Amino acid sequence: MQTVYILSGPAGVGKSTTSSALVDALKNSAYISGDDVSHMHVRGRQKPWESKSELSLIWNNILGLTRNFVLNGIDVVIDYVTFPDEAYWLRDKLMDLTQNVVYVVLMTDHETLLKRDQLRIPEHQMGERCLILIQEFNESGLNRKYLLDTDQKNVDEINLVIDDIMNNKQYSLDD
Amino acid sequence: MQTVYILSGPAGVGKSTTSSALVDALKNSAYISGDDVSHMHVRGRQKPWESKSELSLIWNNILGLTRNFVLNGIDVVIDYVTFPDEAYWLRDKLMDLTQNVVYVVLMTDHETLLKRDQLRIPEHQMGERCLILIQEFNESGLNRKYLLDTDQKNVDEINLVIDDIMNNKQYSLDD
Repeated sequence: MQTVYILSGPAGVGKSTTSSALVDALKNSAYISGDDVSHMHVRGRQKPWESKSELSLIWNNILGLTRNFVLNGIDVVIDYVTFPDEAYWLRDKLMDLTQNVVYVVLMTDHETLLKRDQLRIPEHQMGERCLILIQEFNESGLNRKYLLDTDQKNVDEINLVIDDIMNNKQYSLDD
Repeated sequence: MQTVYILSGPAGVGKSTTSSALVDALKNSAYISGDDVSHMHVRGRQKPWESKSELSLIWNNILGLTRNFVLNGIDVVIDYVTFPDEAYWLRDKLMDLTQNVVYVVLMTDHETLLKRDQLRIPEHQMGERCLILIQEFNESGLNRKYLLDTDQKNVDEINLVIDDIMNNKQYSLDD
């Protein structure tokens, strides 16, 4: 049975790097960037954090892609700012295809987040929104078992992080 | 009723540039790059021109995205090497949502194609495959009314090309 990994967390926490490494560690795997899916809508697009209909469009697109990949025997890694309600929604919509849905919320301290954000090209910098996102996760009713703290992690430790995500049952999205 | 534009043609003919300009000319529009969708499958991916199942996965992903966009009132521009059979398949799969499917096969002479191909970064160069694709279009039973010759076109004329694609009924995918 295929596994769907949802890698979440605030902007700047390392979702993209971690997702790429996870995809590479799997044998037959797809990588879905929620940001890329979001920007397929070009003209008339609204910011998904300000528009419920835009956010719903994005999640339905992610769902459709994920279902197709799973149906074709492919594991899926979703890289997107995903709150618990959205993760549960996705799990429910995949229930007929797979029970293996893994939800990991990468987290780090404020200082590291802002430092990483400033390394991005200016038009991709999120600034204060990084910190707002941390607060939103804190207020989302997130079960702390889904948190993966990357504070002390450096590039050499990415393999340990990937191993944790793939084998630690605590991230399995249960009822 | 929404319109779905399929912009096809061999690699190097200018699909991407033309698609971007078309997306910008529409009020509420999405851009689907078939190549980007294809590369969402990372590990275990086969070349779509060598694997029917890979090609089928890609087209089902494009279809799913297109249906979601159309259902949300968004015009769609698909940028991908699309043969007539694939265009007709997509039209049939969208028939319950929209009858407006436009199919344009951009074409230019061999010399221009190879010249443009050489302007790409090495790992994106298609080389001889550009010419093989022209031959495949010639052998695909393509009705010549869907062809749009870009031989003499330069950047200044892109607006004329977009106007042609949006208003010329000959590109409408009929039975």
